[in-house]
Amino acid sequence: MSSNAPCGTVLSPVITPFRDDLSPDATRFVDHCRWLMANDVGLAIFGTNSEANSLSLQERLELLDHLVAAGIDTARLMPGTGCCSIPDSVTLTRHAVSQGAGGVLMLPPFYYKGVSKEGLFRFYCEVIERVGDERLRLYLYHIPPVAQVPIGLGLIERLLKRYPEVVAGIKDSSGDWANTQAVIDAFGAQGFRVYAGSERFLLPTLRAGGVGCISATANVNPRAISALGAHWQDEDADANQQALNEIRDIFESVPMIPALKAATAHFGGDSAWNRLRPPLVSLDDGQRNKLLTALKRVGFSMPGLAE
Amino acid sequence: MSSNAPCGTVLSPVITPFRDDLSPDATRFVDHCRWLMANDVGLAIFGTNSEANSLSLQERLELLDHLVAAGIDTARLMPGTGCCSIPDSVTLTRHAVSQGAGGVLMLPPFYYKGVSKEGLFRFYCEVIERVGDERLRLYLYHIPPVAQVPIGLGLIERLLKRYPEVVAGIKDSSGDWANTQAVIDAFGAQGFRVYAGSERFLLPTLRAGGVGCISATANVNPRAISALGAHWQDEDADANQQALNEIRDIFESVPMIPALKAATAHFGGDSAWNRLRPPLVSLDDGQRNKLLTALKRVGFSMPGLAE
Repeated sequence: MSSNAPCGTVLSPVITPFRDDLSPDATRFVDHCRWLMANDVGLAIFGTNSEANSLSLQERLELLDHLVAAGIDTARLMPGTGCCSIPDSVTLTRHAVSQGAGGVLMLPPFYYKGVSKEGLFRFYCEVIERVGDERLRLYLYHIPPVAQVPIGLGLIERLLKRYPEVVAGIKDSSGDWANTQAVIDAFGAQGFRVYAGSERFLLPTLRAGGVGCISATANVNPRAISALGAHWQDEDADANQQALNEIRDIFESVPMIPALKAATAHFGGDSAWNRLRPPLVSLDDGQRNKLLTALKRVGFSMPGLAE
Repeated sequence: MSSNAPCGTVLSPVITPFRDDLSPDATRFVDHCRWLMANDVGLAIFGTNSEANSLSLQERLELLDHLVAAGIDTARLMPGTGCCSIPDSVTLTRHAVSQGAGGVLMLPPFYYKGVSKEGLFRFYCEVIERVGDERLRLYLYHIPPVAQVPIGLGLIERLLKRYPEVVAGIKDSSGDWANTQAVIDAFGAQGFRVYAGSERFLLPTLRAGGVGCISATANVNPRAISALGAHWQDEDADANQQALNEIRDIFESVPMIPALKAATAHFGGDSAWNRLRPPLVSLDDGQRNKLLTALKRVGFSMPGLAE
């Protein structure tokens, strides 16, 4: 684990398994987390790919408690705790910190669009002040294609100035490398930890001075991604990045979240993983066939998952 | 009250007052609701203009309980109960129904963008089935500029076919009259109740066979709007619609939600109303001056508010 990234170099927004009645399946969740950790991938539970916003507050609290009770290394946890409301964000953040999470990943409030920079700044300030815990390490979550509320450089600068110890980094899921580069250039030197939102940018991010990636496909391809994170200065790094991209391309050829679950169900031999909560739905037969055929063609597997 | 609109012809997404520490102010909330009811405006509490998504689930439950305890006519209540998650939407909806709310206004799950029609359909089905109460009257909330997840005619048709008694109507906040007209034309004859999302469309909606409007500015201009709703077949209806539009224009000249609060604070002589929860912020001095100057120029007032 890189010393400048306490939560690790590569994290996964852990997919959330559901029972037949759509309740969260804590047992399968813990198992999947253990498998990811065994592949040196940290746990950004309750992210976009975790269907976190399809869970209630209480369900998130309980799933985190299950991980802690199962003995997962909480320092490698970076739960998503950003909600539309200040009180919900405070509740989740305070709980994560009290359970020893190495960081939290915080969406901006995402209901209102076109909100002012001042309003976003005050939102984060209110949450930080109300949590009021010096152990808090807050990572901003910039994902404009989904949240539609961007986190710009000016906001980062103001927050870093007011809370230099707390505001620890960012996950940039803009898909815009120029933005990732700009954030690293502006704040990387002062220890602000920049994670790319996809392993597609892992090597560029590390070479530019960022710390790693938090990526959907780390749910299914954890070993190869974490290996590049650990050995990015080796001679074969570019070839390994290219290999990661090819797997990523396959997953991106169908809807990502159900694709992650379909692959986990198939390669782990456990069809329960195919369940999603509405408004998300499973892959249809054509999509599933397209995904699995392409994965088998390149010899993809998920070793150790079914053990 | 029109017989084909049990919750009333004109409703207001009731603005939510906050105390100095940003906690909800139940006393002022009840007072404002009473004033609206006295002006023949129903209570679409927990709407977009209520900053509902800036409240926690618990805060919403408690505020509704305060209204019930205060003796408000619950048949005129149409609380917003749509959240990103099925369990939270079920909790709020079940509570509203159990408290006797005449209807609920349900946002689609609004975190994920570009979700499938099938996924949206299943979301609403899951909520309806899990609430499992034949008293439920569900109004769909179509507000694509904010939620970014539209409710199309195909979804309405499928839901109406499966739950003809439960699916009662829609609030169309698209701002697109052609869409409102299309929904009325398609489903109005079978008793599906269409509310425009602004009093700007009140007269066209009523003339086309819709039932009324649920409008932000009904918070501040309730008597004139409800009067047009009651007397829309009178000779002076077009002139009265024009007068409503002029007031609406003034409020739309600055950010709407803080404008509603600024007017309530000013004309009610109670500056506590100026508070908003981040990410929303109060009007700045220039905006407030612009708003109040324009309102005074046209002789605007909010009679009875300060009594």
